[in-house]
Amino acid sequence: MTQKINDAHRIQPRQLDMPPRLLLGPGPSNAHPRVLQALAMRQVGHLDPAFLEVMAEEMELLRYLFQCDNEVTIPISGTGTAAMEASLANIIEPGDVVLVGIIGYFGQRLADIAARYGADVRTIEKPWGQVLELDELVTAVEQHRPSVLALVHGETSSGACQPIEGIGELCQEFDCLLLVDTVASLGGIPFFTNDWKVDIVYTGSQKCISCPPGIAPLTFGPRAVRKLEQRKLDVSNWYLDLNLLMKYWGNPHVYHHTAPINSNYALREALRLITEEGLAARWARHLESAELFWQGLERLGLSCYVAPELRLPSLTTVCVPEGVDAKKIAGRLLNEYNIEIAGGFGPLAGKVWRVGLMGFNSRRENVTLLLEALRQVLP
Amino acid sequence: MTQKINDAHRIQPRQLDMPPRLLLGPGPSNAHPRVLQALAMRQVGHLDPAFLEVMAEEMELLRYLFQCDNEVTIPISGTGTAAMEASLANIIEPGDVVLVGIIGYFGQRLADIAARYGADVRTIEKPWGQVLELDELVTAVEQHRPSVLALVHGETSSGACQPIEGIGELCQEFDCLLLVDTVASLGGIPFFTNDWKVDIVYTGSQKCISCPPGIAPLTFGPRAVRKLEQRKLDVSNWYLDLNLLMKYWGNPHVYHHTAPINSNYALREALRLITEEGLAARWARHLESAELFWQGLERLGLSCYVAPELRLPSLTTVCVPEGVDAKKIAGRLLNEYNIEIAGGFGPLAGKVWRVGLMGFNSRRENVTLLLEALRQVLP
Repeated sequence: MTQKINDAHRIQPRQLDMPPRLLLGPGPSNAHPRVLQALAMRQVGHLDPAFLEVMAEEMELLRYLFQCDNEVTIPISGTGTAAMEASLANIIEPGDVVLVGIIGYFGQRLADIAARYGADVRTIEKPWGQVLELDELVTAVEQHRPSVLALVHGETSSGACQPIEGIGELCQEFDCLLLVDTVASLGGIPFFTNDWKVDIVYTGSQKCISCPPGIAPLTFGPRAVRKLEQRKLDVSNWYLDLNLLMKYWGNPHVYHHTAPINSNYALREALRLITEEGLAARWARHLESAELFWQGLERLGLSCYVAPELRLPSLTTVCVPEGVDAKKIAGRLLNEYNIEIAGGFGPLAGKVWRVGLMGFNSRRENVTLLLEALRQVLP
Repeated sequence: MTQKINDAHRIQPRQLDMPPRLLLGPGPSNAHPRVLQALAMRQVGHLDPAFLEVMAEEMELLRYLFQCDNEVTIPISGTGTAAMEASLANIIEPGDVVLVGIIGYFGQRLADIAARYGADVRTIEKPWGQVLELDELVTAVEQHRPSVLALVHGETSSGACQPIEGIGELCQEFDCLLLVDTVASLGGIPFFTNDWKVDIVYTGSQKCISCPPGIAPLTFGPRAVRKLEQRKLDVSNWYLDLNLLMKYWGNPHVYHHTAPINSNYALREALRLITEEGLAARWARHLESAELFWQGLERLGLSCYVAPELRLPSLTTVCVPEGVDAKKIAGRLLNEYNIEIAGGFGPLAGKVWRVGLMGFNSRRENVTLLLEALRQVLP
């Protein structure tokens, strides 16, 4: 070797030791201890028969979570944004009209990503905190005749929950695919992929599923699969190409990329916890925690940004009272109580706090602690 | 709720318990126990001050691993293939001439991905097991005048190690960027990003770094950053767009996607182990284990597919003797000894086994066990 090793960047950082945060922001939520244990399980190869069994179980568990029978139901090897991009990349061909409902930041992100794949993006917008009415969507679909209508079910930036029922029928009538983002809602709030006739649904792992971020489930129904099969051009994103991914997740289990083994262990465990609890009980728990929190806010003289009937139980936007420094309060909660909540951004910057009661964290004791801590730090 | 919950997919799989495999295939390798412990550390938010510190340390530790001073040195939130795609997506604009050196499967993958981003792909090929000579590359660069030359340092499909020294000077002379895949080599075999004038380098986490798959480091040197800054079009891949990623990894730490917190913990620990051991000792250890293995193969009457001077110490292709069923032997090692090795594929299907001695697994006891197990199962 003629080269000399450069030791300039050879630092010796201390042993990892993170503060014991209670994560009550917009995500990640804390993983269940059983999920962290599964995450650290010894590894096997990504084509090991034992791992293929894990994959088959995960797909089945995901069908329960999504409430669908779709064959193409897998986790993407990335975060929720990767699943969002996979959903769009696989069904958009350049020039396709994609209608995006924008009720907050993540609708805007859908529009941005769709544009990168050459879509002719049209939008229908509502102020943050509101949702789109069915008749507004009917008018927009009639006007734009999109090949895809993309909506956000739980808008983490605003705390509003977009009703989805009825929109599937509209889309089928106009031969349009319905794509729904459930990153902040799935596993915490009722969602019925099949019954609501939703063609494409994706989510993240780190919110109501309470699995560490880095793996993101999606499902493609038969109409979406047909569109994928009829593409004229290759999917321009190789890593997220579902044609290739399904050859790994289905038979003949052909190598595409090395699956994140440990993240799959963790997701399987998080999903196992969901089937043990059952969706009905889980949805009820999320609603109960949220209502307890909303009532407590009222007692503190605080109000919610979103009208009660549109409120997302998993993520509440709390109005910052006049004259209160939102950042300072969140900082005190973090530094003095180890509780993470987030501020608003975009049009809601400085105006709201965002409080998540998601998955494992959606529990009475966390609501109680947060309300009391808030009482103590508010001026 | 009018819908009824569908319990058809509500399975109750058993508690996770994976077999204790020794992973001596082409990857993943077994993670060091300290890395699995770090992986399961309690979570914090992706903008928590404690996590921003982890990120800063990781970037610095990666500069030591890559042997570079590049500011843009981060892990991608996906597997090695995502880092490969990020490397290409960020520097290719439609019509750019990209010259790919193909000495095995992963060169072919580089060409496939480059084509999806609209590159005018040219290739220079050698049979699997051989490498490209500098004078062949000079001729090809003179002929094609590419804006990017992409090479694979450690070709996992063939077991050959492509020499890189000298090629950086060639690329600078022709105003071409040099991109090198080190998925199967970085952390196990000498590599000098700065000294060898390599503009773009990426790797995976799960081979010589012995961190679970799902996070993949890359580095962009100043010439690559300039090309990125001068793009006419947006990067068509949003998730992997380095312009956006660097706003999260650098100041002002703007949210792009929720970083895989726990995978970052694990990578930091794996890198910490590397700075503790030191690159010189680590490279020497990989070479010693490989040589011990090669000598043992000779005693068993087995030969290596690649000539000694081109052999990758981290991955050895072992010729399958006449009349031996390669799959059956690998199956017996897995089922009777819990040892994973892999077969060959493409032109090497049935002709070789692929044996990895990577990272934590590159140890005398593993070589000893594998050789003895091979002796016992070979006819």
